[in-house]
This record gives sequence, structure tokens and C-alpha cells, in this order.
Amino acid sequence: MSRIACVMTNMFEDSEYTSPLEAFEKEGHTVTVIEKEKGKKVTGKNGEAEVETDMGIDDADPASFDALFIPGGFSPDILRADDRFVAFSKHFVLHDKPIFAICHGPQLLITADVLYGRKMTGFVSIQVDLRHAGAVVFDEEVVVDHGLVTSRTPHDLDAFNRESVKQLKA
Amino acid sequence: MSRIACVMTNMFEDSEYTSPLEAFEKEGHTVTVIEKEKGKKVTGKNGEAEVETDMGIDDADPASFDALFIPGGFSPDILRADDRFVAFSKHFVLHDKPIFAICHGPQLLITADVLYGRKMTGFVSIQVDLRHAGAVVFDEEVVVDHGLVTSRTPHDLDAFNRESVKQLKA
Repeated sequence: MSRIACVMTNMFEDSEYTSPLEAFEKEGHTVTVIEKEKGKKVTGKNGEAEVETDMGIDDADPASFDALFIPGGFSPDILRADDRFVAFSKHFVLHDKPIFAICHGPQLLITADVLYGRKMTGFVSIQVDLRHAGAVVFDEEVVVDHGLVTSRTPHDLDAFNRESVKQLKA
Repeated sequence: MSRIACVMTNMFEDSEYTSPLEAFEKEGHTVTVIEKEKGKKVTGKNGEAEVETDMGIDDADPASFDALFIPGGFSPDILRADDRFVAFSKHFVLHDKPIFAICHGPQLLITADVLYGRKMTGFVSIQVDLRHAGAVVFDEEVVVDHGLVTSRTPHDLDAFNRESVKQLKA
């Protein structure tokens, strides 16, 4: 079973957390929500999901996780203004661990400067930023590139969940 | 006196609309809030400002305005997913009219593909996207480049308002 680090704060896209969480847990994987602080209540941008964070970023060792999960909404843009989340994310690229990023999730990877040549997708508004960051962008429901799984919107969740679960060790 | 087009929707950064508005109106300029629809109530991300929109984008002729104002928050990222707002914004660059963009405001100009070689700033999280889009980025409270006035956060509003007003015809 895999240990998945989920980096997330307020204004996340509610279903882009809850739906993959359900898919991961159904297969026996664990998801640890990492925010600036542990035990903080963070709320989705639609007010549908409230989540208590499991771990503060200062206590989070990326080496102890098998995969990275970045839900969308406006949460990723808030996180990428904090160097600790950027450094945390880079670990998963350097060590070829799976990364699951949906909607605005890839914004954190832009700031981590790890997208050159990667095949991927993202929310329509950030596709230009992904191209500028060197990514090869496709307008598909899901793109899988050597463990990097990306999708565009909540409408893509079935494909996103299916391909993300495939990257994890049973 | 100048006619200023303000493109804005929900989740704008409250004070980045209300403070420049006050500065512009104090000097006798007029501000027209343009959204997808006319007469819609849009709310700032902090819930402090609620604004009724003046004009729908389909009825907005950029040629009838002297300047463009793009408040920040998450509004600009929503607007840039709509080609009509992107096309509207390009007019002001093509015709060398003043543009005032604060915080996430420049995201709309990234999608408009008009930033190559421009000196500017923006919210810390999007500075990487501005550089990738070809801009020359400075971490200053305000940057003025041939009518393009940009700032980083609400803390920069005094400088942003002062330099923006200077670009308008009295």
C-alpha cells in the first residue's frame, strides 16, 4: 500500500480532493493532508468539504511518502507562494515518484521548475503557463507521463482517479 | 476626464477594486465594471465588497474606453478562461492605452500574449509565469512601463493608485 502526501490549503476545489481520496482509500492507500499547520480546518472553495489537516509542512519529510497529490482550486496558487511546499514537491520529481495534479494543481509544479518536456494537461486558464514552463500540453481528460498524472477539471475525475491508482503499488 | 474599463468577476481582491476606484473617482474619472453579464452582483474574495456590474462583455466596445483596470484576487484567472476578455484586453495594448493591473491582474495579460519585454511586477506566485511570458519582472511596489502600471499586493495600493492616476488625462 502507498502513502500519499496531499498538499492542500483553503480554497481547494472540493471534489478534486474528496473524489480521489475515496478512490485511493478504497484501494487501501493512505492520504496525509499537509498544510502550513497541523490540525487546521481548511475549506473547499465551494464550501462542500471541510478537512482537518494531518501534518504541518515543517514536519513533513517527503522521503516518507510514495506519491504526491495536488488537488486544484485556488489552493495550489496559495501554496506555491511558500518555498517549503515548492521544495517538498520537487522531491517527488527528483525521485521519480508518482505525482497526481488536477486543474490548478500543476501551478505548484511550474514554480518548482520541473515541467520542461513533460507531457501534461491542466485547467484551461493555466495551459498557457504550462506551455511557457516548457511542458507539452494536451487538451485531454487525463495525461500520463512517467508517473505524472494530470487532468483539467472535476469532469475528468473518473479518468484522473483511474490512472492515478494505476501508478500506486498494491 | 478618462473612461476606465474595469474587468472583474467574483473572487476579486476587495481592496484592489475599492481603493483604486476611490482614487480614480476623486480625480473625476469614471469606472465601468465589465463582467460576463450586466447587472450581476459580484463579491470580493474577502466578502468585504459587493459590486453590481455595469456592462456585459458582449456589449463592451474597448474603443470607447481610455484605460483598462484589472483588480487582483482570483477574478483574473477566471476571466482569462473566456476569450472575450482576452480580446478586450489586447485592444489596450495595441492602441497604447494605459493598463492598471495589480496582484493576479497580469494573468489576463499573460493569456493575451502581450507581455514580451515589458517591465512589470505582480503577486509573488505569478512572477514566475510573468517571466516565462517574456516580461522583465521586478519585485517593487509599483512598476510603470509606457502606461502599463503593475503592483504586487494590497500593501502597494498607495503607489499603484498614485502612478495609475498619473497616466490618465485630466
